Amino acid sequence: MSQRMGSAGIRLEKPVFIRSSASIVGTKEGQGPFGDLFDMVGEDDLFGCNTWEEAESNLQKDAVYLALGKADLKPEEISYLFAGDLLGQSIATSFGIATFGIPLFGVYGACSTCGEALALGSMVVAGGYADRVACVTSSHFASAEKEFRFPLGYGNQRPLSATWTVTGSGAFVLDQGSAEGARARITGISVGRIVDYGLKDSMNMGACMAPAAADTIERHFQDFGTKPEDYDKIITGDLGKVGQTVLIDLLRDKGYDISSVHMDCGIEIYDAEKQDTHAGGSGCGCSAVTLSAYILKQLEKNMWNKVLFLPTGALLSKTSFNEGQSVPGIAHALVLENPKE
Amino acid sequence: MSQRMGSAGIRLEKPVFIRSSASIVGTKEGQGPFGDLFDMVGEDDLFGCNTWEEAESNLQKDAVYLALGKADLKPEEISYLFAGDLLGQSIATSFGIATFGIPLFGVYGACSTCGEALALGSMVVAGGYADRVACVTSSHFASAEKEFRFPLGYGNQRPLSATWTVTGSGAFVLDQGSAEGARARITGISVGRIVDYGLKDSMNMGACMAPAAADTIERHFQDFGTKPEDYDKIITGDLGKVGQTVLIDLLRDKGYDISSVHMDCGIEIYDAEKQDTHAGGSGCGCSAVTLSAYILKQLEKNMWNKVLFLPTGALLSKTSFNEGQSVPGIAHALVLENPKE
Repeated sequence: MSQRMGSAGIRLEKPVFIRSSASIVGTKEGQGPFGDLFDMVGEDDLFGCNTWEEAESNLQKDAVYLALGKADLKPEEISYLFAGDLLGQSIATSFGIATFGIPLFGVYGACSTCGEALALGSMVVAGGYADRVACVTSSHFASAEKEFRFPLGYGNQRPLSATWTVTGSGAFVLDQGSAEGARARITGISVGRIVDYGLKDSMNMGACMAPAAADTIERHFQDFGTKPEDYDKIITGDLGKVGQTVLIDLLRDKGYDISSVHMDCGIEIYDAEKQDTHAGGSGCGCSAVTLSAYILKQLEKNMWNKVLFLPTGALLSKTSFNEGQSVPGIAHALVLENPKE
Repeated sequence: MSQRMGSAGIRLEKPVFIRSSASIVGTKEGQGPFGDLFDMVGEDDLFGCNTWEEAESNLQKDAVYLALGKADLKPEEISYLFAGDLLGQSIATSFGIATFGIPLFGVYGACSTCGEALALGSMVVAGGYADRVACVTSSHFASAEKEFRFPLGYGNQRPLSATWTVTGSGAFVLDQGSAEGARARITGISVGRIVDYGLKDSMNMGACMAPAAADTIERHFQDFGTKPEDYDKIITGDLGKVGQTVLIDLLRDKGYDISSVHMDCGIEIYDAEKQDTHAGGSGCGCSAVTLSAYILKQLEKNMWNKVLFLPTGALLSKTSFNEGQSVPGIAHALVLENPKE
């Protein structure tokens, strides 16, 4: 890997606040360990729609409405929306958030999209381009299975290294207003780059993404002059149990031991044994709803002061997989701190 | 449509320069009116690769290399890359630009992606987050037909309102250095929003996108206090002949006559009669290569002083089309001026 001269991590001198957030999830997520923490749990995973894709679009729409409502904002008061999802040509976004009429930056980073959206959103607010922006990402188990593997009706088998795509959407409003009432401060950003170790197993995406997470974390430590102990938690998006082992090993080789502070949203969101979710949860929605429902609450309650939050993405498509390509990874990191400090 | 309070067009007080750019196209584009202006024309449309997708990835890689080379820059000197394409999960990008090791913001706005990438890239440079960024987008006729319609081998028929996806990639390096040697100044940005008139004909994407272009242009005039005569050209991405008529009519209804200054990259890039391209060219590559090869040259040569450049995107996927959804549009606009002024 080349030595980076150009980019060196972004410190937000005047922090950006996560003003409000919302999480909406499906039935399985509602039955998991964070079940009581989500704002809304669907009664069934079609959410009153006719197709899985439409259901996912509705998740995005409702998550944005909820996040706006919590901050007592109208759509007209949001300057820009940063949004994306896992489906081909991001159709969950296109059909989900059109109704708001908010100027849109569509973003794609597979399951790292939440990190990318929050990073760009923060930069645009801190750059003085907008008083307020919103970020939203989503995933849906059934639309993702159809998009990347097989429609659910096929009843295909899943190896133990496979992850379970989270049905859910998380939305966030960012501004530079008062610390009072904010959910968290965003104080730093480390933008990910594509890392490809040549792995080709789309049923073991944790291992495919772990090298990208390790790269971003290492560059983050170097750029910010920090070490694992400086964070109450280092939180990856959806590496799952296999990817977690790989990440910890890779970073140990680079001289960093994150084993005592590492947490993975995908591992926490389900009770793998009871819920039969194998390696853990995944999807753009996984880190987004965990951030809104759990991580931000821990920061608010002073359980944690400072965390590194890095959603992780596997950059594959059905076509690239069928053509025998590898599964490169990417991970975007944000430093989130207790809002009050 | 709601009255926008939050966003009101972005004026770049200190302009961002397009430092260098590059365009690489396929054989058909090489035989078109701009044939001699492109930096490279492929000998065949596989560009030495085994699949259309790999060919498109290579286009992106080579376009970035060329743009860097023209500015005498190494990849390490680029802080961030803004990149995207039309394929599901943006795989042309994922497999095209990994080799550079540059932190990546993946963007998606269908064929408006070039506008979105340049908008975000400019904002990040002008916001002081980076000395230098690069933007790249691509499309490929064969990979797009397979992605959105049918593999070429099926030999399906095309109605006259259909557009021809441009095989090509355009790359751009942005900075805030000296005006000397720059290709153009970016002085303003109007971010698009999703506009959906309910049209469902994926073989008439010009008509689907025209309302979004009209919305962005109208908001741009209002936000910047300008009118059609203030621009030497108002240049849409790929509306084609049908979409052009719709756009001019829609804006006339809103009180603006752009008929004498309107130009569409899709109409100009091919000789429709000789090349049998029906309504015109389209794709993320269409506006990108036309910008690099033709529009920037016109600005450099003082043929034009100021243009409004707005790539246009149709937000559909094969899945959304098959499920009977409409084809919403989006268009992001940039004010480009003669570099010297």
